[in-house]
Amino acid sequence: MYRFHPIGCIHSGFPEKFGIPRQAGLVPEATAVLELFAPYGRAETLAGLETFSHLWVVFVFHAHLKRSWHPTVRPPRLGGNRRIGLFASRSAFRPNPIGMSAVRLAGIRQAGNRAEIEIGGGDFLDGTPVLDIKPYLPYADAIAEATGGYAAAAPPRLPVAFSPEAEAACRRIDDGSLKDLIAGVLANDPRPAYDGKRDAKTVYGMRIRDLDVHWRVSEGRVTVVSVAAFPPVDKPSTNGLAP
Amino acid sequence: MYRFHPIGCIHSGFPEKFGIPRQAGLVPEATAVLELFAPYGRAETLAGLETFSHLWVVFVFHAHLKRSWHPTVRPPRLGGNRRIGLFASRSAFRPNPIGMSAVRLAGIRQAGNRAEIEIGGGDFLDGTPVLDIKPYLPYADAIAEATGGYAAAAPPRLPVAFSPEAEAACRRIDDGSLKDLIAGVLANDPRPAYDGKRDAKTVYGMRIRDLDVHWRVSEGRVTVVSVAAFPPVDKPSTNGLAP
Repeated sequence: MYRFHPIGCIHSGFPEKFGIPRQAGLVPEATAVLELFAPYGRAETLAGLETFSHLWVVFVFHAHLKRSWHPTVRPPRLGGNRRIGLFASRSAFRPNPIGMSAVRLAGIRQAGNRAEIEIGGGDFLDGTPVLDIKPYLPYADAIAEATGGYAAAAPPRLPVAFSPEAEAACRRIDDGSLKDLIAGVLANDPRPAYDGKRDAKTVYGMRIRDLDVHWRVSEGRVTVVSVAAFPPVDKPSTNGLAP
Repeated sequence: MYRFHPIGCIHSGFPEKFGIPRQAGLVPEATAVLELFAPYGRAETLAGLETFSHLWVVFVFHAHLKRSWHPTVRPPRLGGNRRIGLFASRSAFRPNPIGMSAVRLAGIRQAGNRAEIEIGGGDFLDGTPVLDIKPYLPYADAIAEATGGYAAAAPPRLPVAFSPEAEAACRRIDDGSLKDLIAGVLANDPRPAYDGKRDAKTVYGMRIRDLDVHWRVSEGRVTVVSVAAFPPVDKPSTNGLAP
């Protein structure tokens, strides 16, 4: 038995599991802040990290700690109805729920014994506990000849359009980065793969930051229906499916 | 605080830290066996893993558990005399001593609730406890545009020659793979970077499997002096420096 403790945590703007990018790097617009607690965030421990373009984040799938693992899983990439072995997947339900993601290093803010590292392309639930960060070493980690079974290439991205109301709501909040983030997330089609109800009328909902985002998918195109402050008065979000 | 338990361990043929490849992939000849304990090694958990060319091994730096971490380290790649921040390094001395290595998947032997996975290119101490294995996903893990600070490229490999005695000793053991392994390990120049005594007369020693290997380095060329069963009667190995 080994005991590990968090050296930091991630502020990602994804408060719910539903909709989070399924691998690091799929949504470059998904920026996050990795907070290093004292004493791990002191300037000395980070000296030289800024010379790397990417870093590994080793973390705990903290929302999965209480659920046990199953020998097989149904990855979304296989349509959600074919089972493969747990160790042939990157599922969060593992005997030791440790995750690792390669992310872009966008900036480092350091003060006293703490630091905030800006990262891009993350796939983290808000509040994710961090166990370690390591530089991404291209010569050891980027294996050009690797081939990847059922998941050799990134999934296709869907085109994303915004309703006039959703577009206006984004514009009231900032000058474009929120809209880019929503478009990046939904282009990866976060709908549950095993959802039998998939049709053009189904409205899906997810939370991004403190917002409730609703969309539908028709003929391979995503349309963002609404972007509104969460919680809305009359429509609580229910695990991805809007009521 | 999080508790994790080993799901397996690695049989690497490197019984001592000195001489182990400094990153995964540097010595393709370094094959190892990753043993998955029951129940983790059952056939179901591995179904589909064989379709991937590479996998990640998440492990514990178990020889480093009792030593505390220091905010800075002196990586061998910088000559061993320049300090950088711990988190800008892949040093084993970390607040949470978790390692990760991308290795080639060479084969899977499965029986009952246990399995043995043959891997290539590892950088593991014999007996390393394994916390997780995951498929290497090229689209998420192989970041072609990543740049790597002080360690952008693999270190240069030195040419390796064998003395007639060392060559004969290898030939008595097998038909070439031992010699290839020794050559691959020593081409990466495992001498301590901070060793002030570096000269052509110094003989270094390391253990590979149950053998004691001695070599010297002169004008950028490695010569393997001897390969003998360990422990030899009259010359105990002392932390890399032969007596």
